[in-house]
Amino acid sequence: MKRNLSLMTDLYELTMMNGYTQLGVADKTAVFDVFFRQQGQISYAVAAGLEQAIEYIQNLHFDEEDIDYLRKEAGFCEEFLSQLADFRFTGDIYTVPEGTIVFPNEPIMVIRAPLSQAQMIEPALLNIINHQTLIATKASKVRKAAGNAIVSEFGLRRAQGPDAGIYGARASVIGGCNSTSNVLAGQQFGIPIKGTMAHSWIMSFDTELEAFEKFAEIYPDNTLLLVDTYDTLRSGVPNAIKVFDKLRAKGKKPVGIRLDSGDLAYLSKRARKMLDAAGYTDAIIFASCDLDENVIASLNAQGAKLDAYGVGTRLITSENMPSLGGVYKLAEIMEDGVAVPKIKISDTQEKITNPGFKTLYRIYDEYGMAFADLIALEHEVIDETKPIRLTHPTMRYKSTTLQKYTVRKLLEPVFKDGKLVYNPPTIAESAKYCEDEKATFWDEYMRNDNPEIYKVDLSDELYELKQKLISLHHAPRS
Amino acid sequence: MKRNLSLMTDLYELTMMNGYTQLGVADKTAVFDVFFRQQGQISYAVAAGLEQAIEYIQNLHFDEEDIDYLRKEAGFCEEFLSQLADFRFTGDIYTVPEGTIVFPNEPIMVIRAPLSQAQMIEPALLNIINHQTLIATKASKVRKAAGNAIVSEFGLRRAQGPDAGIYGARASVIGGCNSTSNVLAGQQFGIPIKGTMAHSWIMSFDTELEAFEKFAEIYPDNTLLLVDTYDTLRSGVPNAIKVFDKLRAKGKKPVGIRLDSGDLAYLSKRARKMLDAAGYTDAIIFASCDLDENVIASLNAQGAKLDAYGVGTRLITSENMPSLGGVYKLAEIMEDGVAVPKIKISDTQEKITNPGFKTLYRIYDEYGMAFADLIALEHEVIDETKPIRLTHPTMRYKSTTLQKYTVRKLLEPVFKDGKLVYNPPTIAESAKYCEDEKATFWDEYMRNDNPEIYKVDLSDELYELKQKLISLHHAPRS
Repeated sequence: MKRNLSLMTDLYELTMMNGYTQLGVADKTAVFDVFFRQQGQISYAVAAGLEQAIEYIQNLHFDEEDIDYLRKEAGFCEEFLSQLADFRFTGDIYTVPEGTIVFPNEPIMVIRAPLSQAQMIEPALLNIINHQTLIATKASKVRKAAGNAIVSEFGLRRAQGPDAGIYGARASVIGGCNSTSNVLAGQQFGIPIKGTMAHSWIMSFDTELEAFEKFAEIYPDNTLLLVDTYDTLRSGVPNAIKVFDKLRAKGKKPVGIRLDSGDLAYLSKRARKMLDAAGYTDAIIFASCDLDENVIASLNAQGAKLDAYGVGTRLITSENMPSLGGVYKLAEIMEDGVAVPKIKISDTQEKITNPGFKTLYRIYDEYGMAFADLIALEHEVIDETKPIRLTHPTMRYKSTTLQKYTVRKLLEPVFKDGKLVYNPPTIAESAKYCEDEKATFWDEYMRNDNPEIYKVDLSDELYELKQKLISLHHAPRS
Repeated sequence: MKRNLSLMTDLYELTMMNGYTQLGVADKTAVFDVFFRQQGQISYAVAAGLEQAIEYIQNLHFDEEDIDYLRKEAGFCEEFLSQLADFRFTGDIYTVPEGTIVFPNEPIMVIRAPLSQAQMIEPALLNIINHQTLIATKASKVRKAAGNAIVSEFGLRRAQGPDAGIYGARASVIGGCNSTSNVLAGQQFGIPIKGTMAHSWIMSFDTELEAFEKFAEIYPDNTLLLVDTYDTLRSGVPNAIKVFDKLRAKGKKPVGIRLDSGDLAYLSKRARKMLDAAGYTDAIIFASCDLDENVIASLNAQGAKLDAYGVGTRLITSENMPSLGGVYKLAEIMEDGVAVPKIKISDTQEKITNPGFKTLYRIYDEYGMAFADLIALEHEVIDETKPIRLTHPTMRYKSTTLQKYTVRKLLEPVFKDGKLVYNPPTIAESAKYCEDEKATFWDEYMRNDNPEIYKVDLSDELYELKQKLISLHHAPRS
């Protein structure tokens, strides 16, 4: 991302920055948390987007034309505008690695930076993290439904703009897809690229058979034929078999067929029988057409004979929930060398924010399975030689004590004093890490319907701080 | 868009191009149509994205590293790869201008170009046009619900990546929004930018009152105060009024308040009474928080006292339908100087494509209201001095004859022989044009629930050509 996205912020952030400058408070150190709330079918998420967030932070700068634009359009004071010319990020960022399984209400990124800087980067960071985390999560659900079948991301043409196609492909692979059809994403991120055949190839010839034959001549080792242009069972599959016979005669092995419309369960079973009868038991049946985790699960339940999936629109847009509501909330501010924790009150208990500079621990049980996440204040240390008591974030009478457990600190430093201190893994490494992550969670936490809720607890110290701050503010009851 | 998006295509397009080169047919002139089908609540759409489509076409080129990547990953033949080095678009593109009201099944863009070129640009063109048309359409629905109230696009942080935020803001303004919070979109497209105040501003001070006072000191002419951080009616609005009193004492006029949570109908009515009682009948109430056209219509029906809306997530993602299913279908191919029309058959009559090189007419009745669109073959000319008979695309017994009418050709040339022959309007011009367009349609065509279906008819000549081609192919009946 070499484009200058520095102005990609909401106007009110700049309005605040200008105000903070005029009040002389722009450089107070502030702590902001990024987290998302329980929402629709999101009981867990696969964190993604960190690499683009890093690029964004590293590229932050304001050109003269940017500053002129703000002078003209927003009328900010010259002191603030002149500071923008030298703007760079000088703070700290802690975050979970890409591919980490994360849960509602826990900090997945913590920004500790001069107030003004932290404020400015809010919209872009949320944009990047919300988007890629959303798509990686959707991909992980598709992967779950598809079992060991090959899944390729096919959504470019329906994605919400170029970035949604490119970064959506990236996030899909982190979440569990094997490949993408998007060549630019392949080039940019080293992701495997995958393609089949288009209707227009077939339509450009006089007959379907001729189109298949020509394709097989050019791609004898990669003959996957699209069979639904005219009539799948009466034209497409029989023509494919004729071409496969010619390939076989030449000692070549056909790859298979692709279904892109109609009743995929019925057509795949019929096509399987036809292929098997002709001796092509190894030929795969590749399916596309409005697939998602629910359709794939239903196809599996119906005994559809499908070996590979191209998943497009519903993955690349996360169709049944096209946004992740990640938020960015002030948690602490330094006043004359003293850390003052901050809270936002809400009518709904679950929406009251967690104050203070925090960290996030994952507690594994003696079998290595994730048992609970614990949000604690940053200075709190867990002594693994002693039992740990884990307590529900609001219903404090619900608690569990573990004797044997291990602890992992989930938030890793990425920037320290504005300097990158993190070496991003490759996409393949992140995808592998995500797969390993998933293996440490019981499936029941991850199912779409009525999942078991994974424990995200608050330490005693954090809980008490929160109660103190709530009582300081007028508790609303309207 | 100065990024090189040339590789932003699906692998199978390149696979076909390589095949066409090997078969010596890459330069046959082909005609492709872009159109969308009836889908969810999309009975009409607001076309958008043309400017970015033009930039994409103009920037098409392959660097050596792109070609090396394809050599390595896809194993294409050297003849094809060497052609890519000189690749540029040499065809024609016809399209409706941005802001045009368009309907299912009609060609909104026609590409006439060498087969290989036309194939390659399919995914990027669809990506750009599908996305921006989707968001402009959603914005037009929000605008309709909001009446004359100010509507600002506020969705950057929940958009599906940077482009979705930037181009989504652009499309929102074409469709009817007044402004955006996204500063980069403002700068890039000359769109008005709008901002209010954030919770974090308020939280960064010891008290809400102090936060309001400081803001009013810095922005005495632009004091719009966010009142829901702690308790809207018992803290936020009373504190806002205290600050407004100080502004009034200085001869300044406060702008108003913003509600961002809670029951917006109830809170706006209560807040309106409080503001009026304090003498601030001119102070506006600005609402945000999960708004869309349905919520705004409901708020209006409840008599909510709202003057302006910030519409975020549900607009920028078109939440209830996050993709437009625009497709790109082969319609004609030149064989030895003869135009051969092409068709794709489907089980469903409505999904059978319209063959041939076509154009699109809009027929207005004697009052200047749009009466029907007519898809015709490109050479067909309408003689406005004679009556016109308009016939249903499949139920041909349904027809109407108009005596007095006017005709407008909707598709305009944008590229001729690869040369840009079109001068894109400004966003403000496109937004005005869209507003004028909407005024030529009865509201009943545009409502969300059970809209009257606007007529999109086929000329007799096109209908007959289509029937001939259908009978040539095996008509499936499974």
